[in-house]
Amino acid sequence: MEIKVSTEKFKIGIIGASGYSGEELIRLLSRHPNCEIKFITSRKYEGISIHEIFPRFAGTDLKFISPSIDDIIKSHIDLAFLALPHGLASEFAIPLYNNGIKIIDISADFRLRDINKYKQYYGNEHPAPDLLNKVVYGLPELYREEIKKSDFIACPGCYPTSIILALAPLLKNRIIKTDGIVISSGSGVTGAGRKVDLPYIFPECNESFRAYAPTEHRHLPEIEQELALNASIETVSVNFIPHLVPMNRGINSTIIASLNSMDTADNISKIYNQYYQNEYFIRILNTNRLSDTKNVIMSNFCEIGYSINYRTNSIIVTSAIDNLCKGSSGQAIQNMNIMFDLNEQLGLI
Amino acid sequence: MEIKVSTEKFKIGIIGASGYSGEELIRLLSRHPNCEIKFITSRKYEGISIHEIFPRFAGTDLKFISPSIDDIIKSHIDLAFLALPHGLASEFAIPLYNNGIKIIDISADFRLRDINKYKQYYGNEHPAPDLLNKVVYGLPELYREEIKKSDFIACPGCYPTSIILALAPLLKNRIIKTDGIVISSGSGVTGAGRKVDLPYIFPECNESFRAYAPTEHRHLPEIEQELALNASIETVSVNFIPHLVPMNRGINSTIIASLNSMDTADNISKIYNQYYQNEYFIRILNTNRLSDTKNVIMSNFCEIGYSINYRTNSIIVTSAIDNLCKGSSGQAIQNMNIMFDLNEQLGLI
Amino acid sequence: MEIKVSTEKFKIGIIGASGYSGEELIRLLSRHPNCEIKFITSRKYEGISIHEIFPRFAGTDLKFISPSIDDIIKSHIDLAFLALPHGLASEFAIPLYNNGIKIIDISADFRLRDINKYKQYYGNEHPAPDLLNKVVYGLPELYREEIKKSDFIACPGCYPTSIILALAPLLKNRIIKTDGIVISSGSGVTGAGRKVDLPYIFPECNESFRAYAPTEHRHLPEIEQELALNASIETVSVNFIPHLVPMNRGINSTIIASLNSMDTADNISKIYNQYYQNEYFIRILNTNRLSDTKNVIMSNFCEIGYSINYRTNSIIVTSAIDNLCKGSSGQAIQNMNIMFDLNEQLGLI
Amino acid sequence: MEIKVSTEKFKIGIIGASGYSGEELIRLLSRHPNCEIKFITSRKYEGISIHEIFPRFAGTDLKFISPSIDDIIKSHIDLAFLALPHGLASEFAIPLYNNGIKIIDISADFRLRDINKYKQYYGNEHPAPDLLNKVVYGLPELYREEIKKSDFIACPGCYPTSIILALAPLLKNRIIKTDGIVISSGSGVTGAGRKVDLPYIFPECNESFRAYAPTEHRHLPEIEQELALNASIETVSVNFIPHLVPMNRGINSTIIASLNSMDTADNISKIYNQYYQNEYFIRILNTNRLSDTKNVIMSNFCEIGYSINYRTNSIIVTSAIDNLCKGSSGQAIQNMNIMFDLNEQLGLI
Repeated sequence: MEIKVSTEKFKIGIIGASGYSGEELIRLLSRHPNCEIKFITSRKYEGISIHEIFPRFAGTDLKFISPSIDDIIKSHIDLAFLALPHGLASEFAIPLYNNGIKIIDISADFRLRDINKYKQYYGNEHPAPDLLNKVVYGLPELYREEIKKSDFIACPGCYPTSIILALAPLLKNRIIKTDGIVISSGSGVTGAGRKVDLPYIFPECNESFRAYAPTEHRHLPEIEQELALNASIETVSVNFIPHLVPMNRGINSTIIASLNSMDTADNISKIYNQYYQNEYFIRILNTNRLSDTKNVIMSNFCEIGYSINYRTNSIIVTSAIDNLCKGSSGQAIQNMNIMFDLNEQLGLI
Repeated sequence: MEIKVSTEKFKIGIIGASGYSGEELIRLLSRHPNCEIKFITSRKYEGISIHEIFPRFAGTDLKFISPSIDDIIKSHIDLAFLALPHGLASEFAIPLYNNGIKIIDISADFRLRDINKYKQYYGNEHPAPDLLNKVVYGLPELYREEIKKSDFIACPGCYPTSIILALAPLLKNRIIKTDGIVISSGSGVTGAGRKVDLPYIFPECNESFRAYAPTEHRHLPEIEQELALNASIETVSVNFIPHLVPMNRGINSTIIASLNSMDTADNISKIYNQYYQNEYFIRILNTNRLSDTKNVIMSNFCEIGYSINYRTNSIIVTSAIDNLCKGSSGQAIQNMNIMFDLNEQLGLI
Repeated sequence: MEIKVSTEKFKIGIIGASGYSGEELIRLLSRHPNCEIKFITSRKYEGISIHEIFPRFAGTDLKFISPSIDDIIKSHIDLAFLALPHGLASEFAIPLYNNGIKIIDISADFRLRDINKYKQYYGNEHPAPDLLNKVVYGLPELYREEIKKSDFIACPGCYPTSIILALAPLLKNRIIKTDGIVISSGSGVTGAGRKVDLPYIFPECNESFRAYAPTEHRHLPEIEQELALNASIETVSVNFIPHLVPMNRGINSTIIASLNSMDTADNISKIYNQYYQNEYFIRILNTNRLSDTKNVIMSNFCEIGYSINYRTNSIIVTSAIDNLCKGSSGQAIQNMNIMFDLNEQLGLI
Repeated sequence: MEIKVSTEKFKIGIIGASGYSGEELIRLLSRHPNCEIKFITSRKYEGISIHEIFPRFAGTDLKFISPSIDDIIKSHIDLAFLALPHGLASEFAIPLYNNGIKIIDISADFRLRDINKYKQYYGNEHPAPDLLNKVVYGLPELYREEIKKSDFIACPGCYPTSIILALAPLLKNRIIKTDGIVISSGSGVTGAGRKVDLPYIFPECNESFRAYAPTEHRHLPEIEQELALNASIETVSVNFIPHLVPMNRGINSTIIASLNSMDTADNISKIYNQYYQNEYFIRILNTNRLSDTKNVIMSNFCEIGYSINYRTNSIIVTSAIDNLCKGSSGQAIQNMNIMFDLNEQLGLI
């Protein structure tokens, strides 16, 4: 693998750096040859050295600063990562974008094209409907050309990343029915964020395996939006049931869909391998080999496996990613590399 | 709770006691007021004290003996638990049963009514087709009356127990379609037995979440057999995808099925609560509360929760058990209590 | 094992039942043949059914009530378990005891004989110094006769239980030096209580192994007090370093002490086995076999192993218990059984 | 951090690449800008593609070859990593070294200077006593100058790395007594290698915390050798008790030593920070902050914390590393960087 060497250093700000996605952004950007983290912000930890909060960064000089929008604008950064809760993200996105700072938002604020869905699932009116047509959905394997030209990226959610990457080739090639798709996903507990809440303390998660939000998870409209787009139809309705798994990182999605016609594993294999033939971060397994979170954690890879159930004429696809990397901060950096015309793998291998 | 007190002591043999199901049988029977373990067998550990293999039983005098069928017959035990691999179980079951010893088999040898399915999924001709009509499928909540009269019980598999208990009320009441049922289950690693094999060493399971055997798991024909019986139809075909979860014990099954008509959660609640109103070991959660393995491990309970997805007109049912207890040895003892006309909860609370 | 059958039902109140020790008390008492839980209290959960907080108790009718001391006194319970934070425990202990209710306190309020140590380690003046001479330290294997006659038991801490049981036989027989004892213990995360705090959320504990409070843990003066008593000397000073281990339950203490003279493993074996010959809940392993939390969790056993290091003329003793059972609620019930002249094993096997 | 850029590509062979250390070497070398893996060997997996054994390397073309010494010599590699069992390592080390190939051995064959200790702890005569004076003990923070000039490195064991780095500054500065040092370490299960053995299957490790080999661990003579060298005395005897912790990676060592005189935390802080002032991979925590495996896993850092116990006039030092990285393959690469005069951090950040 040849890596194009640039000596340029892009100036980066991380807004809202106190959660696990923020930590992962810092970890990855610290070893990126063409980035310089100019500041990290956190209201809660203002003035505190980063290693007080994340001891793994001892030796780094960074301190959290309080995020004043004015100061950020004056800082002349090239790009801001927004690792903020939804709602709050747009408060920063709008003025920064309008002042010429590139935005990569890993919150949910700009993922949905339909502001009614936003209201339905997030409970509030969409904070910036006018901006939506500037935003590109940051899934590089599907939208690389748009990302190249964009200054504002909405990074996909973690579950949607694993699911859309698994289904896009089948939908584009009309291999599966769009009715009756069932998605059963499991996520490590960092997926809940660095949230201090009873259901997430160790003894409540360890030796526990449980479904949650089986009909109304906030990633559901995002999944359905992208599946419909890939299938070139109006709407898709799926059953999406996420589970909490007693591990730190990783998502594995198991997807069951009906085949449009009796299809062969060989054909499916060909479709997947062609679709992703130039994609470094997608790993298609041989037929009947299934994905495993342990093969992707601490990496930006998505591992996809599948089996055909001839009895029910359906296909089972499994798709594993690291929720904090390909499912969040790693993908954010992949998007950044594309926006800056850098080698897409920089900082990610 | 009043417990009927009997002073009788039934004499019990455990054939094949060196695995996790054997360990659990010993643990539970040791505190059962009406049982006396006469012997435990293991070819591998012949002559070794039980606490060498399972230190938790230090203080107990039991030693493993080598399992000679003749000796077992002469031992005048009342009942033998068979905790053996499939195939081997029938070698013991046939002569013991023919010599008047009650049998509770926790292997897979006598679960399937159709010997062709046995051959298809287990690879060999069925070892004792003539005995099949003597055997009762040991799921007390569904077959208690037959169990009472039987001398030969085939205990259900762990996954089937969680799934059949979850679906029986819906199928009997024709609430759900029998087509298109999808079952996504996750099991703790003891579900693989005390097997010394690379995929089951700690670093290969920890921080790993993976599907396996997505189209051909050996519990599949057992699940489909019982679902068809409960639905009073000829055959049911389901997608059943088991997963390995990094925890010791517990199964949680997530089941998605289409509703026959627009149904209400209230009605579903009524159906479940009526169906299981006298069942001590079944715990129906309130609507939209889902089951969790941590609520049932080290117990014989099955916890069932459900949500209705009005968008897709389907129901999501989740069902959690301890795979070694309600999914294996605990249910075996529940069956024994019924066969001996003892209080069903003895040794299990 | 013959269990004496009593038909008497003692009336029990559990004050402060919303933590893990409270949950374990309820679990164990629910299957105790001679106990009836009259009420459970929690300020936080007043009016809420127990199964809302601990779903494992679905089917039980208990509701949390708010703990009014007057009401408790009028309830005519025979015994109150106090599962409260230190400081708060004495607020209940004093009036209840003075009104003739037996007390088993599993807080730290009455473990230390020296009120100066209490102040030093807990930060406040001792709340009830006058009561201290009524209180018996509830370690049955060492103080059974006093417990029998007592109406007020201070249950030992979890770490101290594992440590004192391991060292008492060696100290009484003057096998080890009292200088230079080093204790390195590891505990599962339930040892921190059901505390909702950042260091205890799953991703901060999983894949983490760390020492904490290496010089000032609150169990330290309790350990030193009892070691000195067993050694019949004024004071003992030890190094006690607890660790947090990514598991739910269990403590394993590794203790290193210098031998007073070249001693043999045979002699050590004899001393341990004699000292604990009548103790059902103590399990002495063969020389060079070490204890393991997995052999004792969900049980009231203490497993003790040891090796002699002839090079350094020291002994390594390891001692494992379930922190919530023998280290807390199980031992509390063992004490209750003794106080009520019941078989000591009732409810605990 | 400025990284010196070299365009040179060193040719590397990995002998014995089928275990976890081999996997980690491949992972790290794959992203090293100045290395090219020419081959990986494994008798067991000869001819098999690497991704069949380690799916995380899908996309890599490497296949395991059978390790013929002749072929290796003819391959003109610059350096061979030996990730073999002890005993077997020297069979390769001798001919390769004699043919001018640099050796970095991560087995135990060349760590001990005293061949009698080797025989005592490893059971066989030392396989190559003549080579011992060519070998440098590969702990860069202590022996960097020797490593620079050496062609044959014996990488330290994982436990010794964590322990020696923690104690060297104190021993060199005569802060602690060399008598009575107690070391209690805990390791994740990858420390046992990719070994398929009953004690290491998931259910035997999960929810388990246990000491093992408390007087005779094979790392013991290595630890004592280096502590004596650092203290400039003939011999040191310590108590070293390793524990198995239910996690994948990471070692945390807790060390208790007597202070030579009443010392202050400030002085200790100064000593540590001076000693390691130029060491990128050593992270000294503030007084009373202790190390945690989760801060170092997947990194080459060693995190060191300490507290002074004024009551016992002793110091507690804790030291955490990733057993597979700084404790094995990462340190091996750090050594390689030094030998090749590359920036020491290459491939490791």
